[in-house]
Amino acid sequence: MPKDAYTPYQFPDLTHLFAPRSIAVVGASEKEHSIGNHAMKNIVEHSKFAGTLYPVNPKQDSVMGIKCYPDMASLPEAVDVVVVVIPAPFVRETVEQAGQKGCGFAVILTSGFSEADDWGREEEAKLVEISQRTGIRIYGPNCPGLVNLTMPLGMTFSPAFKDDIAPGVIGLATQGGGLGRNMIQHNVRGMGFGNWSSSGNECDLQVADFVHHMAGDPAVKVICCLIEGFKDGARFAAACAEAARQGKPVVGLKVGRSEYGAKAAASHTASITGSAEVNSCVFAQMGVVEVDDIDEMMDVAMLFTRKMPKGDEKIAVFASSGGAASLCADNVGISALEMAEFTPETAKRLADALPAYAGMTNPVDTTSISISHPEAYREALTAVAQDANVGIVLAPLPMDYGQYSVINAQSLAAAQAQSQVPIVPIWMSERQGDGYKALAKSGHVPFRSLRNMRKAVRRWIDYGKWLNTADHAWSPAIIAQGSSGEAGEARTMTEAEGKRALAAAGVPVTAPEVASSADEAKAIAAKMGGTVAMKIVSAQITHKSDIGGVKLGVAPDEAAAAFDVIMSNAKIAAPKATLDGVLIEPMAPAGGLEAFVGVSRDPVFGQVMTFGLGGIYVEIFADVTRRMLPVTPMAAQEMIGALTSSKLLSGYRGQPKRDTAALADLIVKVSDFVMATPALTEMDINPVWVGTEGEGVMALDAVIVVET
Amino acid sequence: MPKDAYTPYQFPDLTHLFAPRSIAVVGASEKEHSIGNHAMKNIVEHSKFAGTLYPVNPKQDSVMGIKCYPDMASLPEAVDVVVVVIPAPFVRETVEQAGQKGCGFAVILTSGFSEADDWGREEEAKLVEISQRTGIRIYGPNCPGLVNLTMPLGMTFSPAFKDDIAPGVIGLATQGGGLGRNMIQHNVRGMGFGNWSSSGNECDLQVADFVHHMAGDPAVKVICCLIEGFKDGARFAAACAEAARQGKPVVGLKVGRSEYGAKAAASHTASITGSAEVNSCVFAQMGVVEVDDIDEMMDVAMLFTRKMPKGDEKIAVFASSGGAASLCADNVGISALEMAEFTPETAKRLADALPAYAGMTNPVDTTSISISHPEAYREALTAVAQDANVGIVLAPLPMDYGQYSVINAQSLAAAQAQSQVPIVPIWMSERQGDGYKALAKSGHVPFRSLRNMRKAVRRWIDYGKWLNTADHAWSPAIIAQGSSGEAGEARTMTEAEGKRALAAAGVPVTAPEVASSADEAKAIAAKMGGTVAMKIVSAQITHKSDIGGVKLGVAPDEAAAAFDVIMSNAKIAAPKATLDGVLIEPMAPAGGLEAFVGVSRDPVFGQVMTFGLGGIYVEIFADVTRRMLPVTPMAAQEMIGALTSSKLLSGYRGQPKRDTAALADLIVKVSDFVMATPALTEMDINPVWVGTEGEGVMALDAVIVVET
Repeated sequence: MPKDAYTPYQFPDLTHLFAPRSIAVVGASEKEHSIGNHAMKNIVEHSKFAGTLYPVNPKQDSVMGIKCYPDMASLPEAVDVVVVVIPAPFVRETVEQAGQKGCGFAVILTSGFSEADDWGREEEAKLVEISQRTGIRIYGPNCPGLVNLTMPLGMTFSPAFKDDIAPGVIGLATQGGGLGRNMIQHNVRGMGFGNWSSSGNECDLQVADFVHHMAGDPAVKVICCLIEGFKDGARFAAACAEAARQGKPVVGLKVGRSEYGAKAAASHTASITGSAEVNSCVFAQMGVVEVDDIDEMMDVAMLFTRKMPKGDEKIAVFASSGGAASLCADNVGISALEMAEFTPETAKRLADALPAYAGMTNPVDTTSISISHPEAYREALTAVAQDANVGIVLAPLPMDYGQYSVINAQSLAAAQAQSQVPIVPIWMSERQGDGYKALAKSGHVPFRSLRNMRKAVRRWIDYGKWLNTADHAWSPAIIAQGSSGEAGEARTMTEAEGKRALAAAGVPVTAPEVASSADEAKAIAAKMGGTVAMKIVSAQITHKSDIGGVKLGVAPDEAAAAFDVIMSNAKIAAPKATLDGVLIEPMAPAGGLEAFVGVSRDPVFGQVMTFGLGGIYVEIFADVTRRMLPVTPMAAQEMIGALTSSKLLSGYRGQPKRDTAALADLIVKVSDFVMATPALTEMDINPVWVGTEGEGVMALDAVIVVET
Repeated sequence: MPKDAYTPYQFPDLTHLFAPRSIAVVGASEKEHSIGNHAMKNIVEHSKFAGTLYPVNPKQDSVMGIKCYPDMASLPEAVDVVVVVIPAPFVRETVEQAGQKGCGFAVILTSGFSEADDWGREEEAKLVEISQRTGIRIYGPNCPGLVNLTMPLGMTFSPAFKDDIAPGVIGLATQGGGLGRNMIQHNVRGMGFGNWSSSGNECDLQVADFVHHMAGDPAVKVICCLIEGFKDGARFAAACAEAARQGKPVVGLKVGRSEYGAKAAASHTASITGSAEVNSCVFAQMGVVEVDDIDEMMDVAMLFTRKMPKGDEKIAVFASSGGAASLCADNVGISALEMAEFTPETAKRLADALPAYAGMTNPVDTTSISISHPEAYREALTAVAQDANVGIVLAPLPMDYGQYSVINAQSLAAAQAQSQVPIVPIWMSERQGDGYKALAKSGHVPFRSLRNMRKAVRRWIDYGKWLNTADHAWSPAIIAQGSSGEAGEARTMTEAEGKRALAAAGVPVTAPEVASSADEAKAIAAKMGGTVAMKIVSAQITHKSDIGGVKLGVAPDEAAAAFDVIMSNAKIAAPKATLDGVLIEPMAPAGGLEAFVGVSRDPVFGQVMTFGLGGIYVEIFADVTRRMLPVTPMAAQEMIGALTSSKLLSGYRGQPKRDTAALADLIVKVSDFVMATPALTEMDINPVWVGTEGEGVMALDAVIVVET
C-alpha cells in the first residue's frame, strides 16, 4: 500500500449517466432478437428519452428509422453516454474513440472480460487505462445495463425491461443482474423503484459511486445495495456517510457471510469478499441496515418509504383474529420491540367502538366485527393510530377473506388519512386477492410475513436510533487506506520498541527497561522496587512464554538468576535468533481485569480494530466487537458497551467498577497511533490491564508489525 | 398435583371423528347465510360424505331436502359425530342428550364459553362433566370446525371451506382458526393437506390427541402444529413420541416465545403458554421441528413430503445465474450445511454438457445456456442429481423468465425422473408466472426464499440426525406429571436432610455431619481429618452465606470457635429461626470446576432439569441446557455436550479433562431421584464439584423443596 494514500475520497458526478442528454448505441441493429435490437427498442419504444440518440453500426444506414453512424469517431458530438453492445474484441477501439471524442460515460454491456479469461483481464485493464487517460468513465463491462425508472430510460438489452417499469422512490445498486431483477420484480407486490445500477465487473465505476449518486438524487428516498464483493470497502463506507448526511437510509445485503458464499462470489465477480464479521461491524458503524435476504431488504425499504423513524417508536398491534394478534405481539417481543400502552382516551374510544368481548388493550383483537361492522373497525383503528404513545401500527391479516379483505383495506386507508403514524398491514396469506391489491394501490404495501415484519421494524427503529446517537462527526475521517496494493515486507517490533512507540503516542504502558547482563537486570529490578516481569527481547521470538522466555513476579534479588535462565532457555529454543537482552518491567497491580485491543489491515475496509476481554470470553463465546478506524471517543465507549461481557466491567457480583473511561481513552489513543503510522499492518495489545475506577489501564504486552 | 398421577398417557381413537359413518348437525338451517346453513352446505354440497346425515332443528321438518329431527334424543341412532352450531345457552342440553344416547363425538363450533366470561367457564366445566360421565368426547367449543381434506369432509361453518380443498399429505393441528386457514391457503402455491383440526378451547380433546391420531393416519406424512398454549405439555410430548415411533415428523410453531406473545396467547386461549426456553428444549428433545414463522413451517413440511432425510445429506447448488448461485451457496454455509464435492464422473458429465465458461464445481452456474440450450441444462442437472455424494439439489431461480421458466421447470422434472435425490427449486421472485405453476404442478413446490430454504434444509437434516441418534428408548417413560393441579404447601429440606436423601439415591455428595455444640464440632472436624466446610442448619435460613452462616476451609482446631461464630451470626440475623446446629463436611479437593443441576416443576411439561456450569457462564452468557425428565444416560451426555462452555470440560488450554462420565451419572441419578420423589417441586445442586477424569464429582450443596 502506498504510504501517501491517506486522502479523502472524491466521487464522480453521475447526473448525465443516469439522465443523459445524448446517447450512442454502438452495435445498434435492426435484426429482431439481437441484443443490439433489444437495446435500441428499450430506448426508442419503452423509454421516454427526449435527448438525441445515435445508432452506431458500420453495416447500416439507419436503425429503427434513425440515422446510423459507422463508428464513434464520426458522430457529430461527444455524447453523454455510449451504450456498447458489440463483441468483446471490438470494445476497446470504440471506447478509445469515445474517450478521444470527450464522451462522458461508456456503458459496456458486453461480457468476456475479467470474468472470463486472461485475455479478458488484460483487455479490461486496457479499458481502465483509456478511462484514466481520456476521462471517459466506464460502467461495466459484463452487466445488464443501467435503468432509470423515473424517466423511464432503459440502457439495457433485457427484453424484461418493459415489464419491470414501476416507478418509485427506492434506488437499487447491484453487481450481477439476476438478483437485481429479482428485486425489481417486487413491483408485483406494489414496490416502486427510482433507478437501478447493476455494474458488473466494475472496472471503473463501483457500487460506492452509485450509492453516492443516489444519496444526492431527490427522486430516491431509500438506497438498496446487493453486494457480491467490494472493490474498495472504505470507498463504500464514504458513500454511505454521504447518504447518512443526506438522511437517506442505505439497506445492504452482502454475499459472503459464509465461506461457501465468499468463495463462490469471489469466483463470480473477481471482487474481494472479505470477512463477514468485519463487514457487519462496518455496516453497523456506517448505519447501513444489514439484512438477511432479498425479500427482507424489500420489506425494510418499503417501511423507510412510509416514514423515517425517530428510534423510539412504540408498537401497536391491531387485528381481527386472536391468533394473529397473539402471534404478531409475540414477534414484536421476539425482536425486543416495545408495545405501546394506550392512553385513557384511546381506551375510551376503543370501548365505545368495539363490543365488550373484543381485546381492547394492546394487542387489539376486534374479533369478527371487522366484517360485520367495518365502521367500528375503522373507528378503533383510527383511535389506535392517533394514540400519542403509538409510533407504528401493525395490522396482521392472517387470511384472504375476499371482498371482506377489500373492505378492511379501505378502512385501513381511511384510518391512515387521520394519522401521521404509519399503519402497516402484514398480509400473511399466500393468497393475494383484491384486498392485497387494494392495500398496495393505496400506498400501504404489506409486509409478507410476521418474521419479515419484526425484522424490518427492528431495523427501522435501530436506524432511527443510530441517526440520533451515532458519532457522525466521524465519517469525514474516512480515508482511502483500504484494499489497494499488496502488503510489503513486514517486520515485528520487539516488545520494548513497541511499548516505546505506544508510550510516545500517549498509550499507558508499563515502563520497561532492557537488561543486557545479569548484573544490569539486578540493578534495574532493584530500582523498580516491587516484583517485576522479565521477558526475552528478540525480533525472531514471538511466542516468548512457550520457550521459557518469560518470568513473572520476580523479586528484585532473584532478577540476576532469572536473567540467566531466560537467556539460556532462549538460546536452546532458538539458537539462530538474535537475543537483545531481557526486558524488565514492574508487575501490574493484582486484581485487574484483562482486555485486548488488536488492529489489523482488512483487505476490504482497511484498518479495523478488534476489542474484547481476553481468554474464555473470546475463545469460547467469541465475544468481541470491531470497528473501522479511526475510533472516536464516542465509538470507543460504544465498543466497550457492545460486549456481552461488559457486565464484568460495571460492577459484576459486588466486584468494583472498572476504569472504562481510561479504557476508552486507550482505545482512542491506539486508533490515533495506527492512523499516524501508515506502515503498520497489524498490532495486538494483549493483555491490557484494566484497574478499578480511577486506577487507569495499562498495556502489558504489545506486538506491532510494520512494513519495511 | 395428585401424587399417584404418574401413569402413561392413553389416547382416544379418533377414527370416527375424522371419518364418521353418521353425522348430526344440531342447528341445521335452511336460512341463507346462517351458520347452520353454511354447516349443512359444507357437508351436503362441498364434501363427499357417504354416511348418514341428520339435520336437527325443532323448527324445521327438513333441511336441504333431508328429514330433520327436533332434538338429539329423537334421532334413530347414536351418531359418530354431532356438529353443534346452536347458541351457547342451548349447547349443554344437546350434548347431554347426545352423550346419553351414546354418540361418539360432539364438535362444538359455538363460541361464548371459557374464552368469554364466567358463565361460559362454568358452562364449559359442565360440558366436561357430561363428557366424563357419558363418554362422549368433545371437540371445541369456540372453534371453526374439523376438516378432512382427503375425503373431503368439512364439519365447519366456514364459507371458505369450498375454496380451501387441496388434498395432500400434510396434517394440520391448530387451536385458533385464523392461523390454520392461513396455512391451508398455502394451497395456492401448490401445498396439499390431509386434514385440519382446529380445536378452539380444547375443553376435552387437545392438539396432542390430534397429533397422536395423525401419527397413525396413513394419509398423513407430516404433522404441522401451531400451538397458542398447552393444556398438558407432557401429553403433547407423548403424542410426539408416537409420531417419532411411526417415523412421522412433527413441525411445531409455538406462540409465546416472548412475554408479549405469552400474555396475548394466554388471554386468547385460556391455556398455559409456559417458558419459551423450556418449550424449545422439549421440542428438540422430542424431535419436534421448531420453526419461526408459518411460511417457514410450510416450507419445512414441503421438504419432508419430498423425501425423508437421513441426516448426513450434502448439498448441491445448481443455478443459471452467478449471483443466485453465490447467494444460495452463502445461505448453505450460513446454516452450517455442507456442500457436496462432485465425483470425477460428474465433473466429466458437466464438462461434456456445459460451455467452458460455466461454473462446473459446486455451486454450478450454467450461465444463460439454461435458455439457449435447455437440453444441456437438463443433462447437467441430471448429472448433479445422480452424483453419489449429493443428498439434495437446490436450484435457485432468481427471476420469472416467462416461458423460459416453464422450460426450466420441465427440465427440472425430467432430471428428477432420473434420480431419487430431491431437486428442490427456490423461486426467489415475487412474480409467480407459468414457470412457478409448472414446478408446483409437477410436485416440485418451490421454496419461497433462500432464507426459508436454508432454515428448512437445516431442520430437515437435523431431523434425520435426530431420528438416527436420539434416545428413543426414553419416550415410553413420558408420564402424566405435568400441569394438573395446584402445588400444595412446600417445605425446604435442610442441607443435611437433602444430602442424606441424595446419598440414598446414589448421588455422590459430601458426607456431612451435624454438630449441636462447639465440642461436637471439634470432634467431628478432627475425625474428618483435613479442613472442613461448616454451615448453619436451619429450615428457615436458605441464604446461609449472606448471614455469616458459612465458613469454608476451617482447620480442625478452629472448628469449635467457628461453631460459636456461625451460631451467633445466625441468632442475630434470624432471631426467630430454629437452629438445628452446624453442618460439617470435608472441603472438596482444590482445582475442581463447578457445575449446577437444577430441577423444577414446569407448569406445562412437568419436571424439567436445567444444567450448566455456574457463575458467569450462566449469568452473563445464559449457557444452560434443559430437558424434560426422565434423563437417560445418553441424554445426560447430550446435555453436557450441548453447553457452549463444555469445552472447559474437555481439556481447555492445557487444563486436564474433567470427569464427564461421573457428571453424566450424577445427572441421571438426580433424574431418577426426582422421578421417585413425586412430592418434589424444586431442587438445586449448586455447586457440583467436577474433578478431573477418574476423580468423580460431588454435590457440595443441595436445596430440595417438597410438598407437604
